[in-house]
Amino acid sequence: MDRPWQRIDEWSQARKGKIMEHLPLIAAPLLRRQIVAVFTQWGMPQAAAEEAAEVMVDTDLRGVDSHGIGMLPHYQRFFASGELDPKAQPSVRQERPSTALVDAHHSIGHTAALLAMRLAIGKAQATGVGVVGVCGSNHYGAAGYYAQMAANEGLIGLSLTNAFTPFLVPVFGRQPQLGTNPIAFSAPGRRHPPVSLDMATTTVAYGKVSIARRAGKALPEGWALNAEGRPEHDSAVAAETKLLAPLGGTRVLGGHKGYGLALMVEILCATLTGASAADRITGHFFLVIDPGAFRDPGEFRAELDALTDRMRATEPAEPGQRVLVPGDPEYAAFAERSLRGIPMTPTLLEEVREVCRESGAPFLLLP
Amino acid sequence: MDRPWQRIDEWSQARKGKIMEHLPLIAAPLLRRQIVAVFTQWGMPQAAAEEAAEVMVDTDLRGVDSHGIGMLPHYQRFFASGELDPKAQPSVRQERPSTALVDAHHSIGHTAALLAMRLAIGKAQATGVGVVGVCGSNHYGAAGYYAQMAANEGLIGLSLTNAFTPFLVPVFGRQPQLGTNPIAFSAPGRRHPPVSLDMATTTVAYGKVSIARRAGKALPEGWALNAEGRPEHDSAVAAETKLLAPLGGTRVLGGHKGYGLALMVEILCATLTGASAADRITGHFFLVIDPGAFRDPGEFRAELDALTDRMRATEPAEPGQRVLVPGDPEYAAFAERSLRGIPMTPTLLEEVREVCRESGAPFLLLP
Repeated sequence: MDRPWQRIDEWSQARKGKIMEHLPLIAAPLLRRQIVAVFTQWGMPQAAAEEAAEVMVDTDLRGVDSHGIGMLPHYQRFFASGELDPKAQPSVRQERPSTALVDAHHSIGHTAALLAMRLAIGKAQATGVGVVGVCGSNHYGAAGYYAQMAANEGLIGLSLTNAFTPFLVPVFGRQPQLGTNPIAFSAPGRRHPPVSLDMATTTVAYGKVSIARRAGKALPEGWALNAEGRPEHDSAVAAETKLLAPLGGTRVLGGHKGYGLALMVEILCATLTGASAADRITGHFFLVIDPGAFRDPGEFRAELDALTDRMRATEPAEPGQRVLVPGDPEYAAFAERSLRGIPMTPTLLEEVREVCRESGAPFLLLP
Repeated sequence: MDRPWQRIDEWSQARKGKIMEHLPLIAAPLLRRQIVAVFTQWGMPQAAAEEAAEVMVDTDLRGVDSHGIGMLPHYQRFFASGELDPKAQPSVRQERPSTALVDAHHSIGHTAALLAMRLAIGKAQATGVGVVGVCGSNHYGAAGYYAQMAANEGLIGLSLTNAFTPFLVPVFGRQPQLGTNPIAFSAPGRRHPPVSLDMATTTVAYGKVSIARRAGKALPEGWALNAEGRPEHDSAVAAETKLLAPLGGTRVLGGHKGYGLALMVEILCATLTGASAADRITGHFFLVIDPGAFRDPGEFRAELDALTDRMRATEPAEPGQRVLVPGDPEYAAFAERSLRGIPMTPTLLEEVREVCRESGAPFLLLP
């Protein structure tokens, strides 16, 4: 049996340079208590705070450092500006057996997304498919968390969100017009963990540009653009201008496809739900499908395992790096970090301490 | 009002080098009669032949030369080998109010896809969403045709297909494992024609490598790979080895995302429906959503127009090339080719003549 923790070495190799050996390692339960302490201090009900913290810590455990505790300082700003209402109770605005629209009423995105995904899962279990949109929301963390909720129930999940910070420059343009609008997809195997894709529709997320800047490294063509819409190689400049190329990078390498995918995400998350990104409102879109509505669900899962095996058996270009399946690096990170803890940079620890100071919550992470 | 035919010049510019001025131009009705003549000669019922020909000619009118009449010689081969049964009547194998599985019984893909998409549209109109899978099918032409059928009814459409010819090499690998597995999405505006994305999940379709080979041009890094899994710049070699990079091209430019999207398409089209690509069986996946299940449909369409306007108003990098919305080049091609006819190369005309000879159908395209 191929267990995630057997892939730690592979993962370490794939993420070489991202692992910072000498950082403090924070245990997941402590991190969860810290986040709950901040959220409840804002006035968020205990249950909602625990749920949202659970999503964030899971994200850190999976190695997606950009979307877990790392977002807390941003959430603090959204709370301070009034864009995020910690007391808001998302509600179902419109509902049919296979569809629903949830109004988040400006809650933290996680609360609304959890409600919406649970609703979509129930609809898929009852009718074969569930489509739930969310309007009036905020940042919901990692898109992949919600897609995988469906896979954990033996269902296929799709999770999309728009993002109101414009980063993505459409092909032929020189202004950012869309967020990094991610696509997450998850499908359940039997022997193997779910195949779980979670990708921004830009070539890279902004975080990668920041990392290159701190390391003083040049950017490859296809990551970022300058104010004239041409490739920007200077990571210090790119970190300032924040103009990202859509997946594909340039027109000749298919940048119009990444732009098209980002626009699809925008339409499903914002135009369909009425969450206008132009007004700094975030929307989400969830689709859940029950394989049992199409074929024997056991056969589906067995065949997905066979597909995973077929991909992993691809002859590798380099002997030391075998072909992965989406989700592999995250499962390996999860196994490692569950044992060792979650590495946090001094900067991030300081930012969390500052959040605690501002909100009046106790700082719990370091003695 | 922004009409498609006002964008002919823009399109001509965008497709510069693809328009071959001195080719014979075949009128759409004649091309349709030619295709129908071949299909009925194979034994396909008249109505099915006319429907499939309609899809193919529409595709040629939209400038997608690789997926219209250009596929006829391939279909002739599938017919000759018995993989395509012209007399097959696709049937619904499993059905619930919002889902269905269609068995194509090895019909031409178009026939099964039209049935499935109509079913999905009806389900979306009745319940807000329709998901229909197809197994046991063949090549269905351009994915975008079916997505746009939904948009023409005021609905949002998604159309995916797997393809059993392996072209796509997973990141870190050096063997082709997946087809060019396209994603097509279409959503209806009010003033503007639908936003219509239709993209392979490889950086380029194989046709672009062929074109570069004929022109004796080198390939940019990110299009094709050599047998060692490294970038192949020689178009003559790449046309032989047929190893395409996933969208993104290289790992550093997000090739794992294109690979992940291709795998998602494979799971939804093959694993979900039971159409195993390993057995040279094609499957499709259609999703239709009624915006009216989420908000006022008129408001949805008006807001989509506003989004289109916002994208088109992006400050351009070059003054002569404004930012487009997915579908723009195809609408312009449609307007031009509806008036002028469909250009066909001497090679393609000769191939169609050969198909007619083999099948015993009359050759109608040239006097």
